[in-house]
Amino acid sequence: MRVTQSLLRNRQQRPHAIATECGDRTRTWEEFADRVARLAGALRGLGLVDEGRVAILALNSDRYLELLYATPWGGGIVVPLNTRWSEAEIAYALVDAGVSILAVDSHFMGMGEALRRGSANPLTVLAMDDGPNSLDSLITRHDPVEERGRAHDDISGIFYTGGTTGRSKGVMLTHINHVTNSLQLATMMQLPEGISYLHAAPMFHIADALCIYMVTLQGGRHVILPRFEPAAVAETIAKRGVSDILLVPTMIQMLLDHLQAHPQALPSLQRLYYGASPIPEATLFRLFDTLPDCLPTQLYGQTEAAPMITVLEGRYHVKSGPHAGRLRAAGKAIACVELKIVDEQDQEVPRGTVGEVVARGPNIMKGYWGMSEQTAQTLRGGWLHTGDAAWMDEEGFIFISDRLKDMIISGGENVYSTEVENALFLHPSVAQCAVIGIPDEKWGERVHAVVVPKPGAARDAAALMAHCRTLIADFKCPRSVEFREDPLPLSGAGKILKTELRQPYWADRGRSVN
Amino acid sequence: MRVTQSLLRNRQQRPHAIATECGDRTRTWEEFADRVARLAGALRGLGLVDEGRVAILALNSDRYLELLYATPWGGGIVVPLNTRWSEAEIAYALVDAGVSILAVDSHFMGMGEALRRGSANPLTVLAMDDGPNSLDSLITRHDPVEERGRAHDDISGIFYTGGTTGRSKGVMLTHINHVTNSLQLATMMQLPEGISYLHAAPMFHIADALCIYMVTLQGGRHVILPRFEPAAVAETIAKRGVSDILLVPTMIQMLLDHLQAHPQALPSLQRLYYGASPIPEATLFRLFDTLPDCLPTQLYGQTEAAPMITVLEGRYHVKSGPHAGRLRAAGKAIACVELKIVDEQDQEVPRGTVGEVVARGPNIMKGYWGMSEQTAQTLRGGWLHTGDAAWMDEEGFIFISDRLKDMIISGGENVYSTEVENALFLHPSVAQCAVIGIPDEKWGERVHAVVVPKPGAARDAAALMAHCRTLIADFKCPRSVEFREDPLPLSGAGKILKTELRQPYWADRGRSVN
Repeated sequence: MRVTQSLLRNRQQRPHAIATECGDRTRTWEEFADRVARLAGALRGLGLVDEGRVAILALNSDRYLELLYATPWGGGIVVPLNTRWSEAEIAYALVDAGVSILAVDSHFMGMGEALRRGSANPLTVLAMDDGPNSLDSLITRHDPVEERGRAHDDISGIFYTGGTTGRSKGVMLTHINHVTNSLQLATMMQLPEGISYLHAAPMFHIADALCIYMVTLQGGRHVILPRFEPAAVAETIAKRGVSDILLVPTMIQMLLDHLQAHPQALPSLQRLYYGASPIPEATLFRLFDTLPDCLPTQLYGQTEAAPMITVLEGRYHVKSGPHAGRLRAAGKAIACVELKIVDEQDQEVPRGTVGEVVARGPNIMKGYWGMSEQTAQTLRGGWLHTGDAAWMDEEGFIFISDRLKDMIISGGENVYSTEVENALFLHPSVAQCAVIGIPDEKWGERVHAVVVPKPGAARDAAALMAHCRTLIADFKCPRSVEFREDPLPLSGAGKILKTELRQPYWADRGRSVN
Repeated sequence: MRVTQSLLRNRQQRPHAIATECGDRTRTWEEFADRVARLAGALRGLGLVDEGRVAILALNSDRYLELLYATPWGGGIVVPLNTRWSEAEIAYALVDAGVSILAVDSHFMGMGEALRRGSANPLTVLAMDDGPNSLDSLITRHDPVEERGRAHDDISGIFYTGGTTGRSKGVMLTHINHVTNSLQLATMMQLPEGISYLHAAPMFHIADALCIYMVTLQGGRHVILPRFEPAAVAETIAKRGVSDILLVPTMIQMLLDHLQAHPQALPSLQRLYYGASPIPEATLFRLFDTLPDCLPTQLYGQTEAAPMITVLEGRYHVKSGPHAGRLRAAGKAIACVELKIVDEQDQEVPRGTVGEVVARGPNIMKGYWGMSEQTAQTLRGGWLHTGDAAWMDEEGFIFISDRLKDMIISGGENVYSTEVENALFLHPSVAQCAVIGIPDEKWGERVHAVVVPKPGAARDAAALMAHCRTLIADFKCPRSVEFREDPLPLSGAGKILKTELRQPYWADRGRSVN
């Protein structure tokens, strides 16, 4: 059970079917597999060894997909990097994972070169786009090599998530993690062969990665856009006959706005997968009205679960009828996944009681790279502790009543408040601070800082925001700052009660702020 | 990834849905899971340890299913036994596998007691049907126990196949083997939730075992008949609204004969899976005409692959149109399975060339119990060598041009000719013999013996058949005997050329006899 198996199967069963469509480039499965086998040879030539790391810093492209398959084909481990991270964050991940080869497209060539110059260890930078030393020229120059044939428990990829302790964590996902999660998705969706999937969500994110493996498993067609842009998405769906797409709620809203301004039927679109952050019911209702023949499906999970844990199937996306009333649910456990809601002693709580979501199954990560303590804590007792609070109804549907206490989800991206707080604390004017998510029409949540200044220090919101941007990615930086005179409210154990800070912002939204 | 996970999921998501229907007994998933957890406790009470063996010798029933789940729940390994085997063959398997608990239904109580008395090692015989020490009374007396939680590479079952060397082999199948194969089937079939499957094929056979795990995975309903009987099958499909069934070709013919004599619409039946032996095209055409709304699907594989390797999907079961012309194919490799046709040096041969079918994937057995040499030989190079000869077309369809050279498939049961020959050789009159399969309208193939008697010995076919029945199961015994004066034709290496013996019987059938 390896991520590369489905590629071999497609080469055998549908060599002349289209594998990838990217701009004006189209490749068949035979061509794609040949390029992957040659690229794997090139990577070995660049020094890739078994379990060696190849990082990718690029917008979506067919070459991104080729690297995702060529790396495990050549025995290596792929490290897809968040394109919105700062250079310092990327540098941290490269050193942490022990990356020796970094592939960058033309958008990130400058950063790639800077990273190479600044790296203490040898770092080979591979240009994905055209040029004398580009990926295409490497493919042309190298012969195909035999697949290295990794075992199913071997690591296939390391996916970084923002760290709650201010340090990002490398989630080690194995071949069996990826393959079973894509099999589980195909089974739940009763997917036919020959789907056409549009990669508009970023490929570095585990949600699109799941779809990459699932589309290849189903022998489908990968249609690729460099990034999400609503007009391009609508046009590509119509022009290329796209049947399946995954979007985060913010993207759905932007697509619906576009379709409202530029009405257009998208008859080929059969299934829309969404997840990564709560979706307003109003958005779903708009979606039903705008694309009535497209079945929405919610995927809930996290990187540590490769990522899918539950699915809210299309039939529950209705306003009335026997399946109504589930729109606020995150769905039920998928096949082969066990799910429990537990209390602080890891004991299962009765249905209807809020507790932490824990899960186990073949899709759960091997652990955090180089962080045995956090791994043991997160996987204690053999169960993944998601950090999400939820309750379960009598039919196994879970309802997320709160997300990981301190996490903010803004435009589908996870922002860990501790990490932002760590940055704020480095500013000389800050005495105490807490970072919370507050409602935002466009991004779902906005990063908001509550700051108690040091006595006599200036109250300069712009300066604090500028300070943060020198340390962390722009999307993680506070968008608003609130200054307080009094110390922040503390729990008995001395922790800041963020619940109380959130209360005024969320009170009229009908949702829990615990 | 464990076979018991789907049971836990059904208990969580559909506690009040029907799990099993057997005669006048009906159980919900909550009841079924509760009985399994209590039965596991009872088995532990009877001395079951982790990896301890529980054998089952019984016709199909809901209790058979409970044992299939209770054994791994309690940490054990299940050994389903062929109900058509002789007492000597059963005794061999019990000793070989190290079985300490044997469950028998009322049909096999006598044999169970005889086996217990004749066993050198302590053997507990558990009565599955009513009685003071029955399975039901054990369940009533024991509290539910926690599931033991085996790892995915742990053995879940040992399935015996007739041995080509005259000794039957215990195929060790792991949790991951069973679960992935059932996920693969559900994915290929695009199965909806809530199917109703009729167990008419024997549960001890790996083909029905696959369906057991698949139905539970899909949260479906198990409808159970003790054995295949065409009138009961038709009546049960109609009465219980059965949507799915697996039958071997012989059973399909018998069902069609019944429906011809007693015309009846079976509108609920959506899918018919078949496999285990070649099916005549004429039977498929009759099937299309008789049950036009039921989609036939061919599964090809063997016990060693848990068992499915390829699937010929419903859309290829047509007489005309773009998908026609594939009816003689065994299908294409399922998701996650790699398939090759190789020569005697294990090198892949070009498309269209006959060679041996080899496969690898998560469904391939761990090995043969206690037979490391045969395991290494069968799994050499990491590939399962099926012993089946086939060629592959340009789209990956394989066409079986011959079955394992010496194997006879009669009524869906494998008969290994060497085993029958071994029995024949034990008769004093036999100088030389070869056992082959010859065409049979009802059973697909019939066991036929070609015998060269010792000089002066009697030519007594009836005596030879009676002699075999004392040694091997009735279905393996020759149904016809042909005596020859001259020595049998030999190959250069001194092997009997069975090809030549088969030739006159198969010549006008348009199929290969190599």
